Amino acid sequence: MSYNCDRNSGKLIAFEGVEGCGKTTQIRRVYQWLQSGEIPLEYPVVFTRQPGGTNLGLELRQILLNTDRGINKHAELFLYAADRAEHVATFIKPQLAAGAIVLCDRYTDSTVAYQGYAHGLSLEVISYINQIATDGLESHLTLWLDVDVEVGLARTRRRGSSDRMELANLDFHRRVQQGYVELALAHPQRIVRIDASLNEDQVFQQIQRILIQKFEEWGMNLTWGMGKNNYNVRSF
Amino acid sequence: MSYNCDRNSGKLIAFEGVEGCGKTTQIRRVYQWLQSGEIPLEYPVVFTRQPGGTNLGLELRQILLNTDRGINKHAELFLYAADRAEHVATFIKPQLAAGAIVLCDRYTDSTVAYQGYAHGLSLEVISYINQIATDGLESHLTLWLDVDVEVGLARTRRRGSSDRMELANLDFHRRVQQGYVELALAHPQRIVRIDASLNEDQVFQQIQRILIQKFEEWGMNLTWGMGKNNYNVRSF
Repeated sequence: MSYNCDRNSGKLIAFEGVEGCGKTTQIRRVYQWLQSGEIPLEYPVVFTRQPGGTNLGLELRQILLNTDRGINKHAELFLYAADRAEHVATFIKPQLAAGAIVLCDRYTDSTVAYQGYAHGLSLEVISYINQIATDGLESHLTLWLDVDVEVGLARTRRRGSSDRMELANLDFHRRVQQGYVELALAHPQRIVRIDASLNEDQVFQQIQRILIQKFEEWGMNLTWGMGKNNYNVRSF
Repeated sequence: MSYNCDRNSGKLIAFEGVEGCGKTTQIRRVYQWLQSGEIPLEYPVVFTRQPGGTNLGLELRQILLNTDRGINKHAELFLYAADRAEHVATFIKPQLAAGAIVLCDRYTDSTVAYQGYAHGLSLEVISYINQIATDGLESHLTLWLDVDVEVGLARTRRRGSSDRMELANLDFHRRVQQGYVELALAHPQRIVRIDASLNEDQVFQQIQRILIQKFEEWGMNLTWGMGKNNYNVRSF
């Protein structure tokens, strides 16, 4: 695994996990934090999601999360791939080329976990289709918000959520979880586990620590130091 | 190439060609003819199309043929694949299992010709994705209605058609045509060329001759003979 540390190349950071893991909440907090100027990060920051990060994606998201209709499992896989291809080509890649940090709510690992581990589609087929859909673009970092399936589902019930994915049964969600466990084992450089069973602030603090560390690894010119809010600009 | 001649197994007959080749007209005539009882064909007959042969497909067809919006070429490929996967799994395969003759307006060869030869996507990728989307189901017969691109486009202009595919430029349609030429060369057993430059009745007569011949090859128990309208039931 090699990272492109070109000063002008952005970074794709994916947020992953089972339903109720808190990724949508956390991605918004991270976005606000990075936008706030609290750390001197000289990169534009955008947040987006899959499915639904483009106009085409919004239409596909409506179809995919419609609770009323079953869809053939391979048709579903192809709809996620269509969303991803459009999103990567027309949004993510141009943003990265412009040097942005792209925070993405779900990316390729979701398809492996949901369509592969949970629905039982071939992992080899999914890998091939992800490769085509992304034109080979892996996330530079994936934050896996790891929470027990039961805890996550209890959270989604409290917020009254009922889209198709979240209504599937407990066994299904356990297989999704197993998918993330296997993915994290297979890609330890790319996927970082976050303990998402803790409260929202504690989860956010873990994510902040990981991000600071990664920004430094990527040569993003900031120092955990003595400056404003404990961060400082690295001289260069 | 081997055909399954099981008496209880239906047949998938695809109609292919460039815009204005007349396939939609001809598929309706074939349907009416096979339904009419003029030949003693003891099989149910259905006609359908790709994209748009299912409820999901209708939504995707709307997206795909929308003139107002460009779509990333791989996203487009995946939308056709999603339509096809849903259609094969929920309509075509059950119909074939029930012994039907399924007449389909466009099938996998369209994707090879349009997305492959015309848009320049990898033929290997398309073949892989067609294989997954169809679960390996090839058409038993493909009728390629071969007409000069200029003639076909002139026909579509006369009917005022302007969907996105038909508005693409002449070079594009010539590449589509080249795709069909190559496909017919590569699959002489499956793809039969029909001279679609002739008038509607003449084209229909060619198709009738080919179908009668194929039904007999497939052991479908009818004889071109002396009976009603020159057809007769083969005794068995």
